[in-house]
Amino acid sequence: MPRYRILVEYDGRPYAGWQRQANAPSVQQTLEEAILRFSGEAAVTKGAGRTDSGVHATGQVAHFDLSGVWTGLRIRDAMNAQLRPAPIAVIEAAPVPDSFDARRSATKRHYLYRVLDRRAPAALDIDRVWDVRRRLDIEAMREGAKLLLGKHDFTTFRSADCQAKSPLKTLDSLEIHRAGDEVLFEVSARSFLHNQVRSMVGTLKKVGEGKWPPSAVGDVLEARDRKACGPVAPPGGLYLVRVEYGFLQAEEPVDDLAEDDA
Amino acid sequence: MPRYRILVEYDGRPYAGWQRQANAPSVQQTLEEAILRFSGEAAVTKGAGRTDSGVHATGQVAHFDLSGVWTGLRIRDAMNAQLRPAPIAVIEAAPVPDSFDARRSATKRHYLYRVLDRRAPAALDIDRVWDVRRRLDIEAMREGAKLLLGKHDFTTFRSADCQAKSPLKTLDSLEIHRAGDEVLFEVSARSFLHNQVRSMVGTLKKVGEGKWPPSAVGDVLEARDRKACGPVAPPGGLYLVRVEYGFLQAEEPVDDLAEDDA
Repeated sequence: MPRYRILVEYDGRPYAGWQRQANAPSVQQTLEEAILRFSGEAAVTKGAGRTDSGVHATGQVAHFDLSGVWTGLRIRDAMNAQLRPAPIAVIEAAPVPDSFDARRSATKRHYLYRVLDRRAPAALDIDRVWDVRRRLDIEAMREGAKLLLGKHDFTTFRSADCQAKSPLKTLDSLEIHRAGDEVLFEVSARSFLHNQVRSMVGTLKKVGEGKWPPSAVGDVLEARDRKACGPVAPPGGLYLVRVEYGFLQAEEPVDDLAEDDA
Repeated sequence: MPRYRILVEYDGRPYAGWQRQANAPSVQQTLEEAILRFSGEAAVTKGAGRTDSGVHATGQVAHFDLSGVWTGLRIRDAMNAQLRPAPIAVIEAAPVPDSFDARRSATKRHYLYRVLDRRAPAALDIDRVWDVRRRLDIEAMREGAKLLLGKHDFTTFRSADCQAKSPLKTLDSLEIHRAGDEVLFEVSARSFLHNQVRSMVGTLKKVGEGKWPPSAVGDVLEARDRKACGPVAPPGGLYLVRVEYGFLQAEEPVDDLAEDDA
């Protein structure tokens, strides 16, 4: 059965997250209904990142199988026509080999977290940035962020309902820069624990406010205790921006790749 | 009576425009209600640009008078507290001399128009960009845009309900550049006719699609005929980004400055 890969953008605000839920609209369900309407087939989509309720994506990747044979352009245009007026768009679509798995084949995931750190609240970007209302110290946060890079037990930064078998993850980069009244956190790893990005941002914000010294980031990491974590940053500032696929090095257990929930 | 100046950001989607209307919510009315709630005074706000329904602002400027004496910081914070949950924020506020008039003292207005020119529709930015769904030719549009610079009779680019006494305006700059899948039009002038920016962008889009040659922009300008204009670009792509105040050169009739509606 032909397999298709789609690159998807969405506004997470109206959804209970990527994953299909019994009683709330999800991105996955909305995509599957669009596929059903154009193809007549009840496909199951599998996404690279199971983004939480309210989390956005500019570069989510998903795959699904259809018995019908379609070109990528046709899939893209037909899905977009059926998705309207939902705030979800298929940017690209392409047939892929059966071996491609949007979640398990991913070798790197890139997330962006947007903080608005001016005194006035967000108006154009309500629930699209985290309104922290006070200026953050970028240099202090960068110093703290360095302590998170590399392979660590990220138990502190993992939500209670994280399903990953192991809390060991390798954080490849966490870059912080200012763009006007925004602070942008760019975070990359092969995979993340549930709420890991938002937990790291919430902890770094404590440092940016001057409430914690940069070294506290190392202390809470080493504590391996959820209670040591700063407040989890709200979902609206988080964007899944890019997923990379390439040669998969079997350095981490493959099962864990199934657990990316950021 | 002390006069105050505010710098305002808003999402234009829920509003019938800047200007107070009898039967629809406006930005002006929402601001005036916020002022009333914190100060107990029924002030009238006057804005630098009377943005249309659905047009956004990151840098609208307005003024109003109160008998009470307040610091700028207090006005800003009190208005923001009262504005919630409206998608309007006061970025700055300051006492100003009585001679300051947000509309009449403005010496330059800067607008941004955002076009999304990818095949897939907008998802994160519905009604925040113009979805044109096909790649536009930037160079051709730049060539056409040059013909609009300087002082002209802009009758072609003026809506039927424009109240300006004269169709003569001086367009200072119209720069076009690409940012990923977006085309950004940055337009500056001391003041604009009603719908002028959206009319110019709609005409340039015809050039960008290859439907009109760049020289057609000069032809429609010279026609001085509303019917010669390209389709007016939708309001959601337009942002009032900055208003300048400085030494006012009495080159154009001052009355016309009251008519900025972009």
